[in-house]
Amino acid sequence: MREEKKIITDFKKLVLLLKNKNICKRAVVVWPEENHTQEAVCKAVQEGFIKPVLVCSEQTKKEFADKNSFQAFIANSPEEAARKAVEMVKNGGADIILKGFLNTDVLLRAILDKEIGILPKDTVLTHITVAKLPEYPKLLFFTDAAVIPTPTDKQRKEQVRYIVDFCHAFEIECPKIALIHCSEKVDERHFPYTASYKVLKEEGEKGVFGKCIIDGPLDLKTSCSTDALKIKKINSPIGGDTDALVFPDIEAGNLFYKTITLFCHAETAAVLQGTLAPVVLPSRGDTIDSKFYSLALASLISDSLYNKEDK
Amino acid sequence: MREEKKIITDFKKLVLLLKNKNICKRAVVVWPEENHTQEAVCKAVQEGFIKPVLVCSEQTKKEFADKNSFQAFIANSPEEAARKAVEMVKNGGADIILKGFLNTDVLLRAILDKEIGILPKDTVLTHITVAKLPEYPKLLFFTDAAVIPTPTDKQRKEQVRYIVDFCHAFEIECPKIALIHCSEKVDERHFPYTASYKVLKEEGEKGVFGKCIIDGPLDLKTSCSTDALKIKKINSPIGGDTDALVFPDIEAGNLFYKTITLFCHAETAAVLQGTLAPVVLPSRGDTIDSKFYSLALASLISDSLYNKEDK
Repeated sequence: MREEKKIITDFKKLVLLLKNKNICKRAVVVWPEENHTQEAVCKAVQEGFIKPVLVCSEQTKKEFADKNSFQAFIANSPEEAARKAVEMVKNGGADIILKGFLNTDVLLRAILDKEIGILPKDTVLTHITVAKLPEYPKLLFFTDAAVIPTPTDKQRKEQVRYIVDFCHAFEIECPKIALIHCSEKVDERHFPYTASYKVLKEEGEKGVFGKCIIDGPLDLKTSCSTDALKIKKINSPIGGDTDALVFPDIEAGNLFYKTITLFCHAETAAVLQGTLAPVVLPSRGDTIDSKFYSLALASLISDSLYNKEDK
Repeated sequence: MREEKKIITDFKKLVLLLKNKNICKRAVVVWPEENHTQEAVCKAVQEGFIKPVLVCSEQTKKEFADKNSFQAFIANSPEEAARKAVEMVKNGGADIILKGFLNTDVLLRAILDKEIGILPKDTVLTHITVAKLPEYPKLLFFTDAAVIPTPTDKQRKEQVRYIVDFCHAFEIECPKIALIHCSEKVDERHFPYTASYKVLKEEGEKGVFGKCIIDGPLDLKTSCSTDALKIKKINSPIGGDTDALVFPDIEAGNLFYKTITLFCHAETAAVLQGTLAPVVLPSRGDTIDSKFYSLALASLISDSLYNKEDK
């Protein structure tokens, strides 16, 4: 009999996998001056998959870090905290960054800084979300809801590479990647990127991204529903059972993210990809659970895709 | 006490409104050679809001039209049926077109034909959907899920005008229209259309579109959720209670349509707008209910926005 325990179909199973593999990563928490971040960190510590280092105000050190026996550095401002966190990653002192109560811009400025930053030259920075929808039988990976406005062909290729790697980290042997468009037809005139979809599909077949199945253009329904595929009489190796969605641009990715969290009771986790360590950048509206799951995601990704030379 | 019966918060109430107002429109049904279209037509006839004229094969005339005592013309092909339907609208013999079992392209070709067609010169053709989501307390109007790839400023202005008119037809006195973007900031460099959002907002305030509130850029959450608005500390006259969403492009509109129907149990109705009569263009995957509701939508729109000189 084949062992099936490995299939991670929801976030609880992800946390279980981290336990089974004894994964525990050092997370630097930038300016955790509010309860939601603090609660998510405590929960992740209880589950054993992170060891936190805070960069915080003197008050938060006293009232939160010391009480919980968490290591902490004092910073005088969010800007200073951001720079310190980035420095820690660069020096090998942290595996993950979690943004607390500061503007995304402030943290991104430190991350992207040409001198102290942690985005290697010529590396594409993008954003990957993992969602659990009540109406879908497995986790759904997608990119990009937050970073690249309109991906170039090169950027899209990296998005595909990253998301395949993510699926592999989740132990999905041969992930199915759908390149999303409003129809199934390549239309270079109105939608030039549909031509690049064809190229990515061919590269997928050649093994450029490792073991995976890439298909597109497909729409959301023909990607995620075998019924829709049958009704439209479309042949797709994905078979309406996709693991991941690559969206044409940030408007589509962001809208999908917001629609499923507002109207579909979806749970989500997300990280930046491309940096020297996974970065969790929660939005103001994100739940504690979403931050907790994002830390779990970042821990798995850090373990699977980073510091491979250490193993 | 104020009379509140008029607020149409779902499609059942729409059907009731048509009954109360004694609205009955002549719908030409193009090539109804399959059961779903036939069932939707029968249901609409039972509810009393359409009087159908079929343009169909000899067999369908015998087996469906004659049995139900529906008026019918025989056509030898979908192309001929499409041209006949368009001609009927042009001659004042029909108020609505419903597409049956033929390719959308075939019907659109007849509709857009420069000689026989029914799209007035310099008129913008677009697509409006009305959705009922279990998680939203009222109907949600949106544009454009199907027709214009990337709206120009002029086209977007017409989309706004049409959707305001639709809301007025639904007896929403002062509809709230959200111009959708992935954030709330105007960013001309990466997203030139966010600058046109600002202009539309100003035009709305000047009364260019009649009584309405236009705001944007807003994202889906700040448009549809008062909580999200509070968390982001954003001021919007829409107050997280929008009636309508205007999407930046077809990818966003189409993705929203497919996400809410696949993952959120949404019911939808949709019509083309801009033509001399509302046109219902169901997709292959649409339910009978969706076709039925679209006919109801088309009847109301035909009554409110067309043939005003007849009244």
